[in-house]
Amino acid sequence: MKKLVLAYSGGLDTSYCAVHLTKDKGFEVHAVSVNTGGFSEKEIKNIETKAYELGVKTYKNINAISNYYEKVIKYLIYGNVLKNNTYPLSVSAERIIQAIEIINYAKSIDAKYIAHGSTGAGNDQVRFDLIFNTLAPEIEIITPIRDQKLSRQEEIEYLQSHGVDMKWEKAKYSINKGLWGTSVGGDETLTSHLPLPNEAYPSQLEATSEQTISITFKNGEPIALNKQISKPAVVIEQLNELASKYAIGRDIHVGDTILGIKGRVGFEAPAAIILIKAHHLLEKHNLTKWQLQHKDYVANWYGTHLHEGLYLDPVMRDLEALLSSSQKQVSGEVFITLKPYHFSLDGINSKNDLLQSKFGSYGEMNNAWTAEDAKGFINIYGNQTKIYQNTVHHD
Amino acid sequence: MKKLVLAYSGGLDTSYCAVHLTKDKGFEVHAVSVNTGGFSEKEIKNIETKAYELGVKTYKNINAISNYYEKVIKYLIYGNVLKNNTYPLSVSAERIIQAIEIINYAKSIDAKYIAHGSTGAGNDQVRFDLIFNTLAPEIEIITPIRDQKLSRQEEIEYLQSHGVDMKWEKAKYSINKGLWGTSVGGDETLTSHLPLPNEAYPSQLEATSEQTISITFKNGEPIALNKQISKPAVVIEQLNELASKYAIGRDIHVGDTILGIKGRVGFEAPAAIILIKAHHLLEKHNLTKWQLQHKDYVANWYGTHLHEGLYLDPVMRDLEALLSSSQKQVSGEVFITLKPYHFSLDGINSKNDLLQSKFGSYGEMNNAWTAEDAKGFINIYGNQTKIYQNTVHHD
Amino acid sequence: MKKLVLAYSGGLDTSYCAVHLTKDKGFEVHAVSVNTGGFSEKEIKNIETKAYELGVKTYKNINAISNYYEKVIKYLIYGNVLKNNTYPLSVSAERIIQAIEIINYAKSIDAKYIAHGSTGAGNDQVRFDLIFNTLAPEIEIITPIRDQKLSRQEEIEYLQSHGVDMKWEKAKYSINKGLWGTSVGGDETLTSHLPLPNEAYPSQLEATSEQTISITFKNGEPIALNKQISKPAVVIEQLNELASKYAIGRDIHVGDTILGIKGRVGFEAPAAIILIKAHHLLEKHNLTKWQLQHKDYVANWYGTHLHEGLYLDPVMRDLEALLSSSQKQVSGEVFITLKPYHFSLDGINSKNDLLQSKFGSYGEMNNAWTAEDAKGFINIYGNQTKIYQNTVHHD
Amino acid sequence: MKKLVLAYSGGLDTSYCAVHLTKDKGFEVHAVSVNTGGFSEKEIKNIETKAYELGVKTYKNINAISNYYEKVIKYLIYGNVLKNNTYPLSVSAERIIQAIEIINYAKSIDAKYIAHGSTGAGNDQVRFDLIFNTLAPEIEIITPIRDQKLSRQEEIEYLQSHGVDMKWEKAKYSINKGLWGTSVGGDETLTSHLPLPNEAYPSQLEATSEQTISITFKNGEPIALNKQISKPAVVIEQLNELASKYAIGRDIHVGDTILGIKGRVGFEAPAAIILIKAHHLLEKHNLTKWQLQHKDYVANWYGTHLHEGLYLDPVMRDLEALLSSSQKQVSGEVFITLKPYHFSLDGINSKNDLLQSKFGSYGEMNNAWTAEDAKGFINIYGNQTKIYQNTVHHD
Repeated sequence: MKKLVLAYSGGLDTSYCAVHLTKDKGFEVHAVSVNTGGFSEKEIKNIETKAYELGVKTYKNINAISNYYEKVIKYLIYGNVLKNNTYPLSVSAERIIQAIEIINYAKSIDAKYIAHGSTGAGNDQVRFDLIFNTLAPEIEIITPIRDQKLSRQEEIEYLQSHGVDMKWEKAKYSINKGLWGTSVGGDETLTSHLPLPNEAYPSQLEATSEQTISITFKNGEPIALNKQISKPAVVIEQLNELASKYAIGRDIHVGDTILGIKGRVGFEAPAAIILIKAHHLLEKHNLTKWQLQHKDYVANWYGTHLHEGLYLDPVMRDLEALLSSSQKQVSGEVFITLKPYHFSLDGINSKNDLLQSKFGSYGEMNNAWTAEDAKGFINIYGNQTKIYQNTVHHD
Repeated sequence: MKKLVLAYSGGLDTSYCAVHLTKDKGFEVHAVSVNTGGFSEKEIKNIETKAYELGVKTYKNINAISNYYEKVIKYLIYGNVLKNNTYPLSVSAERIIQAIEIINYAKSIDAKYIAHGSTGAGNDQVRFDLIFNTLAPEIEIITPIRDQKLSRQEEIEYLQSHGVDMKWEKAKYSINKGLWGTSVGGDETLTSHLPLPNEAYPSQLEATSEQTISITFKNGEPIALNKQISKPAVVIEQLNELASKYAIGRDIHVGDTILGIKGRVGFEAPAAIILIKAHHLLEKHNLTKWQLQHKDYVANWYGTHLHEGLYLDPVMRDLEALLSSSQKQVSGEVFITLKPYHFSLDGINSKNDLLQSKFGSYGEMNNAWTAEDAKGFINIYGNQTKIYQNTVHHD
Repeated sequence: MKKLVLAYSGGLDTSYCAVHLTKDKGFEVHAVSVNTGGFSEKEIKNIETKAYELGVKTYKNINAISNYYEKVIKYLIYGNVLKNNTYPLSVSAERIIQAIEIINYAKSIDAKYIAHGSTGAGNDQVRFDLIFNTLAPEIEIITPIRDQKLSRQEEIEYLQSHGVDMKWEKAKYSINKGLWGTSVGGDETLTSHLPLPNEAYPSQLEATSEQTISITFKNGEPIALNKQISKPAVVIEQLNELASKYAIGRDIHVGDTILGIKGRVGFEAPAAIILIKAHHLLEKHNLTKWQLQHKDYVANWYGTHLHEGLYLDPVMRDLEALLSSSQKQVSGEVFITLKPYHFSLDGINSKNDLLQSKFGSYGEMNNAWTAEDAKGFINIYGNQTKIYQNTVHHD
Repeated sequence: MKKLVLAYSGGLDTSYCAVHLTKDKGFEVHAVSVNTGGFSEKEIKNIETKAYELGVKTYKNINAISNYYEKVIKYLIYGNVLKNNTYPLSVSAERIIQAIEIINYAKSIDAKYIAHGSTGAGNDQVRFDLIFNTLAPEIEIITPIRDQKLSRQEEIEYLQSHGVDMKWEKAKYSINKGLWGTSVGGDETLTSHLPLPNEAYPSQLEATSEQTISITFKNGEPIALNKQISKPAVVIEQLNELASKYAIGRDIHVGDTILGIKGRVGFEAPAAIILIKAHHLLEKHNLTKWQLQHKDYVANWYGTHLHEGLYLDPVMRDLEALLSSSQKQVSGEVFITLKPYHFSLDGINSKNDLLQSKFGSYGEMNNAWTAEDAKGFINIYGNQTKIYQNTVHHD
């Protein structure tokens, strides 16, 4: 029988795929979901039950949280990566990891086919197809949703006609949850002028009083919240839980899809936003000017290539090498005050803080150099501008 | 007599200079202050009175607000320039304009000497010296504060001994105010871990209820607040006044000085922060991916060179040419909600909005291409990664 | 009748198209060729005769040499653009201009269809389709060669069966000639290890004795060869003629196609290579360090985007704005010695030469600064490295 | 007694220093020279004899060739670094290594003073002072030549008056020889328009017939000339010897000094130029487009920072990390034909050659994709340009 692995989420589209591929196409369907921080135990159990009701041969949930952190999130922190200075690339990063886990699973069970439920309109199909094709060019990709373009109603009717009578409520907002953030789409995000209403976001303001916390970084990685040492992925989970009570980390991203059109999507990503800003502050204290300059270039491109599905281009390993090297001295504690809907960075404490070096301090006359040194410096520093302005005369 | 122009602010240091240069050094001192948005009419009158009491020959205030906008701020908006992703470069930008105005004044009155009150520790001396030397290499620069390194107390005693008995209260926080922002220094900013207390900031929270406003941009320039058309510099003033009531735009900048040491300074810059974020949002809708990518590179360097005093390097004109060109389609309205201590960007409205083009819309199946197109695209788009991963084997 | 414009070169592929589209498809075929420097008067006459023999309704040759220089080559000179530091982008640049001329012609005669003879394998189809579709989305693109994948023999037989009995000798090397260079493909360029033999290149060594020439640039444009003032496009033609006698400007380009695979192609481009190197030398004398740095970034991307068919992305106009601005002071004369197969840059003469400024000269003790200035400069210039190395200790 | 280490070259300036520091200043002078490939055994012996005649306490020659390759040259090859696309940074790179070796020696013998013979005009003083000060801020730097500004004649007379009667012929051209190239300065290089005459270069044309050679690279390092495996530094020496007979690798560099003025210097660097071009060609075959793009950015800055003396800024280690990562697949053989005064790159052979991948080949119809794929690709690839051109209308 034709063995097929289906990337399965429990939603209407992939449920349709499960039945269609089994019943109409005669595949032996092995459903798999990948947890990148979006599913609770209970939700996974629920997805599993549903999958078997739809008639899949096997169902498997892969816990990829640790891989997700190690292979992608870590570098997004090192690079302070916010696409268009706003978006932590939550969904882009997840899809990459999910695609890799799924294709590796398909290879491990010797499947000859792999299916996903993406449409032909967006970024996800690119990330899935590209990674599947690269890591297993011999496995054929099947995409019923993209090919058939059924309406929601047609899918529901098809399922009912095959005896599947689940409830498929159309949520007002489509939500994609993960460790590095939750995306939110709705009627408003199809416009350019409307913000998402408060209630569209999964987390709602619960906390009211300010709270100062600390994050400890070691070589660029977040290893403690309020001095409680944990694995970085756990620090992220804890911070998400804590800061989402303040409704921190909400925004709307407007960006370019891989297909060349613009897209707009809301998100909430409390841990991602706080960690990136906190990490960046620590770097401003601990890295040299040129380190900040060049790692920014590299990080910007790391985010762009990741977003555009090029995670397996070897250039990504090269960029990661620079980012890793730059983190050698990024250790210390950052103090942050959480407030309703926003937060402030209060300061840092680090033994590698170049600002607190005994060597010199800004704004006061300095033991490290004299007024004469400063004059000599300025005289020579200005050489080229002076020569230019006193030599060149445009026609 | 030896004619000298003194950059005069009314503070203790430049007051000392005024007396010292007149009485001890025998200069004919022409005091000049440059208003880049920091002085009220009353303050200027006050400075004038003080200057004459100190014995200067003439005093002049130069209103440079319009020049400041046209020569620098405009490009900082075009480029969404925030140094280290935080600081609008308020002080850096001001000093450049002040230096240019002062040296031009010195040339116009045929002065042979020019003096400023900067110490040898910071950035300002570089900006002043470099611009003075470039635009008028024949004029000698005199810097008593840098050379003599007197204590505050010694300066006061010197002034008293010369019959000047003004009150020189040491403010707890040193403030530098201007159109593009106000910097705040104090004991806390000499540490790395302490934030500035609320009261250190000149503006305090007055408004309590949220307020949605709009900013209209035309070719990148802010031309209206709430549809009231004004000159851009006036829009900035109005927005500063409005948003400072919400205590918006406060932060602490940690950065690299021209002299190679780190510095930390607080600031409040409500208009700068809001305009840059609003302008950037409009650009995300109206510019292509590659425009956003390349103007970011250029803008980052524009900010760095400006910060480091290289405004007169011709490269700045080249960068300005690209930034100006990129603004041709950046016209439209941006909606912003002001809230206590923060704000949100709600959306935009623009006839050049690429997101609302009739051509295609993200997230729904698209009339502009088919599923087959998408598959063909992805197949070819992935060529190089696929070839690489299936060809290269590292040793 | 269905009016169609055919991009016609006189070769086998487009001859097949002319007959096929007329006879099998019932189009009224208007053949058009665009001269970007590759055709002599006689060759154009020849192409015309052939076209009418094939049964086209009309034939037109468009002389685009001047447009080619003004719209593309000029900026390639400003930017010293050599793709992968080797290739002057001769073919890439030509195709863009040809596509624009052809689609504009199609619009001017109100054609509803446009055809080109590119295959589905290479870059040219992308450049043609993309520009046609962008400038006239309402005109349908017809590509018989890409769609039918006929062999050379099948095309010849088809033509014979329709009474066309021209001679179609397969040249050993495929040549594409233009103002900015001639590309050469052959069996060797399909390998990675074989160079093209001498005889593969259209020009052969004729000159034997060295010859020193001068090129005069004005604001970055080449306006004279040996002080004979001409239009830049004429200077390029003259230089091509002169330097090709020395067999200068040959090389092999290995690069990435838009489709993600690598390609290898030989070329000879004497004028392009000499002008770019000469122009760059003049810039090293006349531009500041930061101008050289940033225009390089911009020029590199200008070449890449041009190569990849994105000429109509507005970012290209932004990059052109910076490049143009940077040329204000690039005026002067460059001296070059032509030798068999290579050339040397001897020097320059320019009133904007920063090296000959009265201000300072390298390698001798300098009047512009003292030993004390130098020591002060170095002391402060080294601040950050010193602080870093004496503060930070990696774990 | 005051122990001092003197960077000693055997020339007039440092000979003056040796005597002056011993006799006038009472230092115990320990002369040290660092061989970075410029000295033969005989020359070193000669320098030693001279040093003792001048009265130094000890003399030591440090062989730094291997360190030079491992710490700097390797990365210049990885990065294909040519400053301003011309100069292999021979002298800049050498000075860095020399400074590090000398200061480490000074520390090892517990010297309290260190002296060098640089003037106040050029780059070398910056490199020496900066590295000395960074690695040993406690050691005082003494620079008699910079401080005293004696003429050549005064130095000779001083030495004679102290009984030193060596011959100090002023060479017509000042030569600085090293593994990575030899610089040549003379009357012509002080002008902008004159080239150096043939006889100014140390190597003269000896070979007349062409010769094809091969260089083998492994992970970016040159490990064999004509398949003879050696240490990379030995390959460089062999290639210098071989190619200098063809007078290959001569050029004139015009660039910006650290002090802001322009400088012009001739050089011959046969191995450096050939290796960089050969290595680059291999990379064009073996690296992806994005690897080539980003490593170019990094390499350009690596060269600039190295040139400007910032070798000890940690950013250099970060850049090296990326460059090293990018070399994993850069293994293979490159074929080069040496000719009088120039050379050609013939081709490469590598198992990692992306051009020869079975996957696809350029210029012929391709099995990896169909005409339909290509049309789909182009349709979507052009989305943004099409949307832009059909949406935006400038005012």
